[in-house]
Amino acid sequence: MDSKQQILNKSNELKEVFLPHLSADPVIFGFDQNELKVLLLKMNYRKQWLLPGGYVQKDEDLDEAVVRILQERAGITGVYLEEFGVFGKKNRSEFYFEDFDETLFHKQRFVTIGYYALYNPGRFKLIADEYSETCEWVYLSKLPEIELAMDHRDIIEKALLTLREKISHKPIGYNLLPEKFTLSELQKLYEVILGKELNRGNFYRKIKNMGILKKLNEQRKGGAHKAPDLYSFDKRKYMKALENGLNSW
Amino acid sequence: MDSKQQILNKSNELKEVFLPHLSADPVIFGFDQNELKVLLLKMNYRKQWLLPGGYVQKDEDLDEAVVRILQERAGITGVYLEEFGVFGKKNRSEFYFEDFDETLFHKQRFVTIGYYALYNPGRFKLIADEYSETCEWVYLSKLPEIELAMDHRDIIEKALLTLREKISHKPIGYNLLPEKFTLSELQKLYEVILGKELNRGNFYRKIKNMGILKKLNEQRKGGAHKAPDLYSFDKRKYMKALENGLNSW
Repeated sequence: MDSKQQILNKSNELKEVFLPHLSADPVIFGFDQNELKVLLLKMNYRKQWLLPGGYVQKDEDLDEAVVRILQERAGITGVYLEEFGVFGKKNRSEFYFEDFDETLFHKQRFVTIGYYALYNPGRFKLIADEYSETCEWVYLSKLPEIELAMDHRDIIEKALLTLREKISHKPIGYNLLPEKFTLSELQKLYEVILGKELNRGNFYRKIKNMGILKKLNEQRKGGAHKAPDLYSFDKRKYMKALENGLNSW
Repeated sequence: MDSKQQILNKSNELKEVFLPHLSADPVIFGFDQNELKVLLLKMNYRKQWLLPGGYVQKDEDLDEAVVRILQERAGITGVYLEEFGVFGKKNRSEFYFEDFDETLFHKQRFVTIGYYALYNPGRFKLIADEYSETCEWVYLSKLPEIELAMDHRDIIEKALLTLREKISHKPIGYNLLPEKFTLSELQKLYEVILGKELNRGNFYRKIKNMGILKKLNEQRKGGAHKAPDLYSFDKRKYMKALENGLNSW
């Protein structure tokens, strides 16, 4: 069965089960090799990359829908997703399915709700669904070179901006770093999210003042330099800091 | 014409013009008598209070829709609205119109997009639409005593939480205060939004360090105490601070 026929066959079933005009798009960030990655897929039908989005069932809450969608499209379970923005321009979604006529479920106007999450890519085995050729992590530094469908580039940029705003009053890193890490690895993560270099002394002081780190009695061995200390997050204090924000009045 | 008949008559027209399942709800905060207020209305049809929300036209962007809705329902124009959250629980909207049958446009499941704005209540003359008995500012302190429809209480609370989060890294007050104000009036605004008292010395130091205020060569006369200095916002610096946030790394 070719990929167009596959989509056509699905259309009537979708009309039965899903709300019209509403979709959800998860933006899943990972951190690897000192770089941020985002989870994307490519459908069999077209060569452009897409976020692993989908539709909302008539009888499910929106927050339930996005969790199910991510599981169905990428095989990822147990992710906590946070809503960060709504994308409602009137012609944002129709062109991707331009080869079809207007009766196709997929081709209507969709307002999409963006959700984001931060995860350590090593934690998941990705499983693409039957409509997708591939589902994989793509480095943010590669995004300028690839073709993204619809307004998905804008959606990723807004998610990144949200992450930047959060980082100034919430701790970030719990899900993105391995359990044990050096301060320099944590600094690199902050630099990558903020898109700028940070002064090492200021960063160390600020991050230690947050009181969210536990210094371990272990060092990272094997580098050319003096083996640096390893740290992990103090989960209880980290969660408390998440609740309160960091720069309170 | 009674209010039920009025809604019934409108239903078919709405189906032609508006997208199903999608609505927008503006939460407009005002500051008056050292208290926050929110803009609410009451329809002719029911005694519960509502946010001045509405539906999205098939051929308009979502951001355009919310501006039009606010104008139609409250007579308010020229407000900059910011999206802050999506409310997508499956049975959130059906009960309000329980006296009608399922074919009524209003009675379907709606996922609503919340927008908020901060405005000086004195700037607007409110004009209720033909479906509403009244449209008015209600003090937040009165909310526990009134009945709010659907999940509109949750929507207002989420908007307030967003405002609290923003206040720690963006300046707030430009649209909420009169052009000239005292530091103590500004502090009161921050206290009301944050829901707690602030230390006067710390607040003055922090707000002055933002560099967004101009001290005027004028004092507030007429109080029992020494006449306090008046300030206004330095618009250029205020806008710059909005862009950058206040607590940068």
